[in-house]
Amino acid sequence: MHEIRKDVVRDNWVITATEFVLKPRDVPVKKLSAGEGGPEPGYNPHCPFCEGNEAVTTDEITAFREAGSPPNKPGWTVRTILNKFSALDMSGELDMQKDGIFEHGNGFGQHEVIIETPLHGQDFHRLPLNRIEAVFKMMRRRYNDLVRDERIKYIQIYKNRGLFAGASLEHSHSQIVALPMVPANKNVLSQYYQEHDHCLICEMVKAERVKQERVVYEGDKFIIICPYASRFPYESWIIPRRHTSHFGDINDDEIKEIALLTKMIITAVIDGLKDPAYNMVINTAPVNVPHQEGYHWHLEINPRLLVNAGVEIATGYFINPAAPESAAALLKHLFAGQAETGAE
Amino acid sequence: MHEIRKDVVRDNWVITATEFVLKPRDVPVKKLSAGEGGPEPGYNPHCPFCEGNEAVTTDEITAFREAGSPPNKPGWTVRTILNKFSALDMSGELDMQKDGIFEHGNGFGQHEVIIETPLHGQDFHRLPLNRIEAVFKMMRRRYNDLVRDERIKYIQIYKNRGLFAGASLEHSHSQIVALPMVPANKNVLSQYYQEHDHCLICEMVKAERVKQERVVYEGDKFIIICPYASRFPYESWIIPRRHTSHFGDINDDEIKEIALLTKMIITAVIDGLKDPAYNMVINTAPVNVPHQEGYHWHLEINPRLLVNAGVEIATGYFINPAAPESAAALLKHLFAGQAETGAE
Repeated sequence: MHEIRKDVVRDNWVITATEFVLKPRDVPVKKLSAGEGGPEPGYNPHCPFCEGNEAVTTDEITAFREAGSPPNKPGWTVRTILNKFSALDMSGELDMQKDGIFEHGNGFGQHEVIIETPLHGQDFHRLPLNRIEAVFKMMRRRYNDLVRDERIKYIQIYKNRGLFAGASLEHSHSQIVALPMVPANKNVLSQYYQEHDHCLICEMVKAERVKQERVVYEGDKFIIICPYASRFPYESWIIPRRHTSHFGDINDDEIKEIALLTKMIITAVIDGLKDPAYNMVINTAPVNVPHQEGYHWHLEINPRLLVNAGVEIATGYFINPAAPESAAALLKHLFAGQAETGAE
Repeated sequence: MHEIRKDVVRDNWVITATEFVLKPRDVPVKKLSAGEGGPEPGYNPHCPFCEGNEAVTTDEITAFREAGSPPNKPGWTVRTILNKFSALDMSGELDMQKDGIFEHGNGFGQHEVIIETPLHGQDFHRLPLNRIEAVFKMMRRRYNDLVRDERIKYIQIYKNRGLFAGASLEHSHSQIVALPMVPANKNVLSQYYQEHDHCLICEMVKAERVKQERVVYEGDKFIIICPYASRFPYESWIIPRRHTSHFGDINDDEIKEIALLTKMIITAVIDGLKDPAYNMVINTAPVNVPHQEGYHWHLEINPRLLVNAGVEIATGYFINPAAPESAAALLKHLFAGQAETGAE
């Protein structure tokens, strides 16, 4: 059975299975990302992100490093640099030009890379918990620093892991793109608030907690669900229970919990779905714009088991062959298994 | 240099290079699609789309076949069937349900497959011209047949070629999805008309013909451009000069020309970019809705040299590392080379 489901968060539609169709054993795209069974994490002389190769990257913006160790040298655990191949830079001002139907701005903005570990081949979800916390603290630090530039209107934090998620370098890293304009698909939450006088995400959490059929885990500070109109098979969202617009407002206790939940849900995805590629993306509120109610940041984990094909490209509709309810049941099972054996 | 360009046809933005950055020799994703140097086209006993294996497909909807040959038997050149793994079917009526924030319809619609050749391993762009014409005639036939069902509101014709374009079967085929609702991104052209009293696509053709920097080829009935805000590296559009809303209104002379141009532009893409995967998609007007001005059908060829990564998934913004102007220059060169040596 299939349904056409409304994606309320993006004001779009998803064609989705309503029972298992794509089971883990049917997953067509496998093992094209770095996985287990490879060499032990360590130093790769050809990798620009490895500790010891700092000289070949752009200058360090900030890092968590041993007290007294100088920038752009070894001794760090998390390190942020400008993306060497950035399409955006912050010199000058945003300059919009229009010539008939052709409208453009200069490539104004910033594109950063957060190197999550000094070691090559060490996967994000296999880092010790305190090191995953450090990655989230670095994301918060960069977010709150970038917000201070009023020319920036939206900050997108994301991670590409594996070839089918668009990763071009294997060494574990996340990226931040700071944009001078708010993407259209980010306006839906505030539009919903204007129409309904409620936060859509808070409503969603409430409704999912009643139904329970798409809840993977309820923590003290976050809830994990497979969203009703999942675009990707086995997609899951980690949503803060506290109504918070900006990711930058995450507190230390929340970072402690989201680090654990992220580690556990990604481990469930990697182990349960034959080591797929995935994207992790943080949806948050626009910045440096007049205050709008209705934003509520959350984190998405999107396994990339299928390639977006012509129909997605042309219509914007996604076809999801894995029922979100079945996905939630599987992830919940895998998640609970880890909780029993200990996440570490 | 980079620019942030307005994608007027989708009301979105693209971050694009303004000079060559991704050159053909840098293309990271190669040779994962069927290409040259493989076995001669022929019969594959395991392929459901091969001539002789008709019994394993769903029932034939229609075919171009030898006079007197019965359906679901050999003797065809182009054959249309229901997609065996369709998420949609036309039994019953569209039934929309709403439960709080959860809104869905049943999987109402139709999903068809056009098998473009009886032979396995025969690529679309290598078919003789009259056979490519037959594929477009089949698309027109199916479009105009599906339009007659008033419950259908949008018909998306598309082709996935190669793993990175989402193709799951190697045997050359296109697909048609008939939907009970109009995708939101298809409304922009009529909105533009309402605001400007002009067809945006006609304006675009006029402006591109003046500028010439993104024109690949001007035919009698069609023009090929690399659009100003190309989402994909080396993306090109084949646009009818005649202002026509519906693909279904294409006439025989136009089919003759678009078959030649499609063959030539895909050959240029395949030969010039190391045999990439690609999607071909037809953008056309909604059907069975009150008449709206401003639609103008066109065909897109989207090479899939990169994977959509976290930033595209999260923001809807595409980052295109190949300048459309450079792409047009290269494709024009490759296109002209074929015209000299003969396209056949």
